[in-house]
Parts: sequence; structure tokens; C-alpha cells
Amino acid sequence: MIETDILIIGAGPTGLFTVFEAGLLKLRCHLIDALPQPGGQCSEIYPKKPIYDIPAYPEILAGDLTDKLLEQGKQFQPGFTLGERAETIEKQEDGSFIVTTNKGTKHKAPVVAIAGGLGSFEPRKPQIENLAKFEDKGVEYMIKEPEIYRDKDVVIAGGGDSALDWSIFLTDIAKSVTLIHRRNEFRGALDSVEKVQELKNLGKINLITPAEVKGILGNDHLSGVVVEQKDKEPFILDADHFIPLFGLAPKLGPIGNWGLEIEKNAIKVDNSLDYQTNIPGIYAIGDVNTYPGKLKLILCGFHEATLMCQSAYKRIFPDKKYVMKYTTVGGVEGFDGTKKEAPKAVVKAIE
Amino acid sequence: MIETDILIIGAGPTGLFTVFEAGLLKLRCHLIDALPQPGGQCSEIYPKKPIYDIPAYPEILAGDLTDKLLEQGKQFQPGFTLGERAETIEKQEDGSFIVTTNKGTKHKAPVVAIAGGLGSFEPRKPQIENLAKFEDKGVEYMIKEPEIYRDKDVVIAGGGDSALDWSIFLTDIAKSVTLIHRRNEFRGALDSVEKVQELKNLGKINLITPAEVKGILGNDHLSGVVVEQKDKEPFILDADHFIPLFGLAPKLGPIGNWGLEIEKNAIKVDNSLDYQTNIPGIYAIGDVNTYPGKLKLILCGFHEATLMCQSAYKRIFPDKKYVMKYTTVGGVEGFDGTKKEAPKAVVKAIE
Ligand SMILES: Cc1cc2nc3c(=O)[nH]c(=O)nc-3n(C[C@H](O)[C@H](O)[C@H](O)COP(=O)(O)OP(=O)(O)OC[C@H]3O[C@@H](n4cnc5c(N)ncnc54)[C@H](O)[C@@H]3O)c2cc1C
Ligand SMILES: Cc1cc2nc3c(=O)[nH]c(=O)nc-3n(C[C@H](O)[C@H](O)[C@H](O)COP(=O)(O)OP(=O)(O)OC[C@H]3O[C@@H](n4cnc5c(N)ncnc54)[C@H](O)[C@@H]3O)c2cc1C
Repeated sequence: MIETDILIIGAGPTGLFTVFEAGLLKLRCHLIDALPQPGGQCSEIYPKKPIYDIPAYPEILAGDLTDKLLEQGKQFQPGFTLGERAETIEKQEDGSFIVTTNKGTKHKAPVVAIAGGLGSFEPRKPQIENLAKFEDKGVEYMIKEPEIYRDKDVVIAGGGDSALDWSIFLTDIAKSVTLIHRRNEFRGALDSVEKVQELKNLGKINLITPAEVKGILGNDHLSGVVVEQKDKEPFILDADHFIPLFGLAPKLGPIGNWGLEIEKNAIKVDNSLDYQTNIPGIYAIGDVNTYPGKLKLILCGFHEATLMCQSAYKRIFPDKKYVMKYTTVGGVEGFDGTKKEAPKAVVKAIE
Repeated sequence: MIETDILIIGAGPTGLFTVFEAGLLKLRCHLIDALPQPGGQCSEIYPKKPIYDIPAYPEILAGDLTDKLLEQGKQFQPGFTLGERAETIEKQEDGSFIVTTNKGTKHKAPVVAIAGGLGSFEPRKPQIENLAKFEDKGVEYMIKEPEIYRDKDVVIAGGGDSALDWSIFLTDIAKSVTLIHRRNEFRGALDSVEKVQELKNLGKINLITPAEVKGILGNDHLSGVVVEQKDKEPFILDADHFIPLFGLAPKLGPIGNWGLEIEKNAIKVDNSLDYQTNIPGIYAIGDVNTYPGKLKLILCGFHEATLMCQSAYKRIFPDKKYVMKYTTVGGVEGFDGTKKEAPKAVVKAIE
């Protein structure tokens, strides 16, 4: 059982900043995310695109924003359960909650902060017979651990940035990389498309278009895929791994059944106070919540997280009085023993 | 008469970010501030100190934060009335407001956003007879235009960062710089104290401690100050300018009499919707407002400004329907003709 002060569901920008604000209050956080990496929409959908409305950043790439937020929170040593979906929640007699993921990992905390964005990112799966049977036995919809592909025959399907970028990345690791797409045209960043063209010319990426994977073969583990290419007979391709990258779509999913008030696919919260839901001790912050005038913007999640942490503190320590100190004045004391602080003014005679 | 869409009172971080958010909605802004420079508390009180809780900035100097906010908003061409205090407000028949400063400058706008922080920064003045008579005739409490000191005899009084830093700065401009402080010890950044010591040793700063200016002389314009130094007879020092830098203290001031609901020296707003005050069309955002759970933090002002701009838009264009677009998707179109936008994805065949 993983125990923490604030259990955060969703490691998008809102969840990541919560770690920092909670840390200032000496509260520890643990984050659960269905994605294999932190960053939420920013890292999954548009890591290489610029955002212009993060305050005091005239421009920042979404991926860099994620990195900065991770850096800002790292001295508060957040825990992560990645690649798992928070599935069920149970309230304990002592008022705390136990959240269990689809893989059975259990987490316990007095406060739960749902920072689930548009929902848990779930892969769009192609319609192929027996696909489910080979999941985690050679069929993966996201790449969690690139090392498992070392010296393997890998088949990637898809026509967007993920398919392009992972094909490029895996040429250095895998024995062979085959990229299959149902059109000749790919849609992505110009440099990614050009890089794939170059690797194809060098024989490092085996490109099959327009084509689709229509079947899979194997016993305990995947051993091949059946490819249908236009104007050709279907053929079999040896494959240790088949990775269909057709995008991830967010789904509110199981959280929708936790007894929370839902409106327009989002969780209603009390925005006049602390972004708490109808269940005391469960908060919803960032894109996942709704209230009059709500804007699904990153900067709003930051504010909501900050106010929410104050309320969480009162819930966890009902008898302590917290006196806020500006970070500039009080510094930032990490759980790892580090301390950041402003250089002190000196009092010094001039002679 | 200066006319604009949103008249912002206070050019602190909240006011500056409002310019950007309003600009995204194609609304123009004009800012009034009692200080000669933008940045509010950040530029006046702690420009060289690090802040650690600006989201995605593990550390940023308060002065750099101000610069970044100015840069982020500059394509929306904000107007500034600096060094003047907003004094009175009158509601017009057409629902708009006219705000007049202590110097008589008039501003008209359908929406007023009070981002006045802890209040208008007002100088602490020493008790010296006739001081008021020489204000702007050789006596200044803030330095607005360093050029007016070129080749002049300048006397600065004070023992903190402002006194130290302006003494250093003016040695390159003024004919002479005298620094007077009632103690031998100065309180400030170590490098400022050391620099003054060095300039004193070089004879570029004339240091008189422990001493106080007790009187001023002159006819139309200041011509000298009377100095009392410990264990000495009072003496007269020639001076074209006397600049007492004893700090600026914020005072809510005239805004307190505008008919707004005030609580704990701050303006009550509707935080469950749009940070509007009890007077429709007047909003209060940032440190100047109060509501249940309010935190006087910079990041909160950013959120409040953003929601407030949406409400202002509806007030100004009751019939238009605004469809929010992410900056990443829609880009940022400046009023100056510039356009920032994310590189588009290409759709391209790989052969
Ligand atoms: C193309 C695009 C451009 C954008 N441009 C801008 C912009 O310019 N400015 C701006 O402010 N915003 C922009 N946004 C919106 C911005 O990305 C979101 O507001 C932001 O990501 C919300 O952050 P969050 O942390 O609340 O949620 P998310 O980033 O959505 O993260 C939520 C995370 O929670 C996880 N999760 C949800 N439920 C579960 C569960 N049950 N178990 C485990 N994990 C779960 C998800 O997998 C996800 O990783 C843009 C969005 C897109 C798609
Ligand atoms: C030493 C110190 C350290 C701090 N550290 C942090 C920190 O680490 N993190 C954090 O988030 N915050 C910190 N703060 C607080 C932070 O600076 C404020 O929250 C922030 O400046 C508020 O911004 P604002 O724009 O709302 O108001 P302000 O910065 O106060 O700006 C308001 C402006 O309005 C002007 N004004 C007011 N009334 C009038 C009028 N009638 N006419 C003309 N002008 C007027 C004032 O002159 C002022 O310039 C710190 C503050 C101090 C003093």
C-alpha cells in the first residue's frame, strides 16, 4: 500500500504543480497517471508546440513546460504510479481514501485531488481479431520502456507524430522497424516526416504504404502480423512487437462512477472556496472540474491547485494554524534536505 | 481624454498580465500607476530577489518577472500613465467610467479593473519644515527621470537598497552625489553596500554618517540642505536636488472612497464568478481584492485577471459570442500587426 498526504490522480500540469504547492505546506504527494510519462495533454498531444499564455512565458514548448514543472517540484520527492488507471475509490473509517488502479496498485491518503484533465488517456485500438489476447505479450499501445524493443522486430502502425517519432527513435534500438500506414501521406511536424524519409532511404525504416495490419499471429507471444497492402496479396511479416499508434483519447472513465456530481463530462466543484467536490476530502482541479465561468486553461489549474492545497492542509491538520510565508521571504525547504532561499540583506557600516 | 477598453489601475504583475489576456480578446488596455515604473511590489520592493512559486519557474527574480510580463503583453500595445495616482471615478450615462488622476489626467473606459495591490505606493516623507513647498522643485521622493540630475549636486538620504542603488547609479550622471544616513550601518544587498564603499573610497560618493537633513534652503528652487552630523555643528550643503528615499508604503487611498465594499483594507469581489465588485463594470483583481480563501499570491492574480477579462468582454460586447481558442491553436495576433503561431503540421507523402 502506497501512503501519502495528497493522492493526485493525473500528472498533467495541474497535478505536477500541486506537488510544489503541497510541498510548501510540508504535505507529500503521490501521482497516478494512465500515461507512461508525466505532462498530461502537454506531453501526450503537443509536446513540441509552443504555448503563449503561460504567465511570464511569452512562449514555451508544452514539453518544456512539463520539464520546468517537474524541476520545480522535485525537491518535494513526489511518488509516481505511471501507466495505470485509477479505477476504484473506497472511503475508510478514519476518513481517508484507498484508490486502486486497474493493475491492482493500492494508494491510501486523507486527501484525493483529481487532476484528471479530460480524462484518462486511453489508446484507440484497431479492429483486429485476438488483439486483446496479445496485449502486453507483444502488442502495446504506448511505449513505456523502450529497452524492451532492443534487438527485436518491431512493427508500428499509424500516420501521425507518435508513429513517426517512435519509428525514428526505435531505429537505434530495435533489430528492425517497419512502419505501416493506410495512406501514403503522413501528418506531423515537417522535420519528423523528413527524418523518416531519410531513414527509409537509408534502409533503416521499412515503410509499407498504403497498407493495414489485418491480423496477428503467435502462441504465447506475438510472432507476426498479417499485412494487407493495396494491389498486393496479403502477406505475413515477422514481428516480436506490434505497436498501433492511432492516438490516445481521454475518457473520464471510472471516476465517473465515484459518486461525484458530474456536469458536461466534468466534476462540479465549489469554486467559491476550495475546489472541493460534493464528497469532502475529494477535490477536483484543472481541466477536469467545472464551475460557472470555468476556463480549461493551464494557468487556471495552477490557481485552483494552490487554493486546494490550503484547504487540504486544514483537513489534514485541523488544529494547526498555518501562516503563509512568501517563498521569497521563507525560502523553499525540500524533503530531500535542500533549501533554496533569497540572499539575505546585510547590515554593514561603510567607513 | 485617454480612451480604452479596460482601464487598469495598478501596473503590478496582475495588471500587466491583464493586458495580455485582454489582448487575446481583442480588448485594449491602459494602465495607471503611482510608481514611475511598472511592476508593482516586484519592481518597487524586491526586484533583485528570487521568487520560487511562479508556476514553471523554479526560480525567477522579481525584476525579471516584470520584464517577462511586459514582453508577453507588448504586442497589445498597452498605454501607461505612470507616476500618477488614480483619484476619482465618475460613472457616465452610457455606463462607462471616467477616472482622473491627482495630476488631472482623465481616462475613459467601459470597464475598470482595479489591480491596485496593497494600494498606491506613497513615499514616507521626513519631517522637515517647508519640504512640501519644494516638491518637484528640487525635492523628489522617487526617481522618475534620471536625466534631470545630469551635472547637478544631488543629496540622497536613506539607508536601504534604494538609497544605495540610486547613489551608485547617479555617480555617472550627477556633478556630485552625497549620501546621508542617520546610522553608520546600511541595510541592503551585499554587493550594493560594497559598491558604495568602493565609490566612497574613490571620492565619487560623498558619505555623511551618522547624520540627518534637518532643513532645506532655496527660493524658487532648492539650493541647499542643512545637515546635522553627530558631534558636529549643523552645516549647509549646496544641493540642486534632495531625494529622501525612506521607502514607499502602499495605501489603498482614494479608491477606498469609490463606493466599493471594503473588508480588511481590500475590495470584496464575487469570486464565484468573475471578480466583479459591488459596482457592475468595476472589477478588482490580485492583491487588492478579498474573498473567502483569498491568497495574496502572484499566480492567483493571473487567474483572476483571466476570468475577469472574459466577463469584461461580455460586458463590452453583450451580443457577440466569444469562442475561446487555445493560443497554441489560434496563435497570438498583436495590435501591432505581429502574429505568433505554432508551426503547422504538414501532410506529406513518404516515398
Ligand atoms: C492541442 C492543444 C493545445 C492547447 N493549447 C493550450 C494553450 O495554449 N494554453 C492553455 O492554457 N491550455 C492549452 N491547452 C489545454 C491544456 O493542455 C490543458 O488545460 C491542460 O493540459 C490541463 O491540465 P490538467 O493537468 O488539468 O489535465 P491534463 O493535462 O489533461 O492531464 C490529466 C492527466 O490525468 C490522467 N488521468 C485522468 N483520469 C485518470 C485516471 N482515472 N487514472 C489515471 N490517470 C488519469 C490523464 O491520463 C492525463 O495524463 C491545449 C490543449 C490541446 C489539446
Ligand atoms: C518582500 C516580498 C516578497 C514577496 N514574495 C512573493 C512570492 O514569493 N510569491 C508571490 O506570489 N508573491 C510574493 N509577494 C507578493 C507579490 O509581490 C504580490 O502578490 C504581487 O505584487 C501582487 O500583484 P498586484 O499586481 O496585484 O499588486 P502590486 O504588485 O501591489 O501592484 C499594485 C500597483 O498598483 C498601484 N496603485 C494602487 N492604487 C493606485 C492608485 N490609486 N493609483 C495609481 N496606482 C495605484 C501601486 O502603486 C502598485 O504599483 C511578495 C511581496 C513582498 C513585498
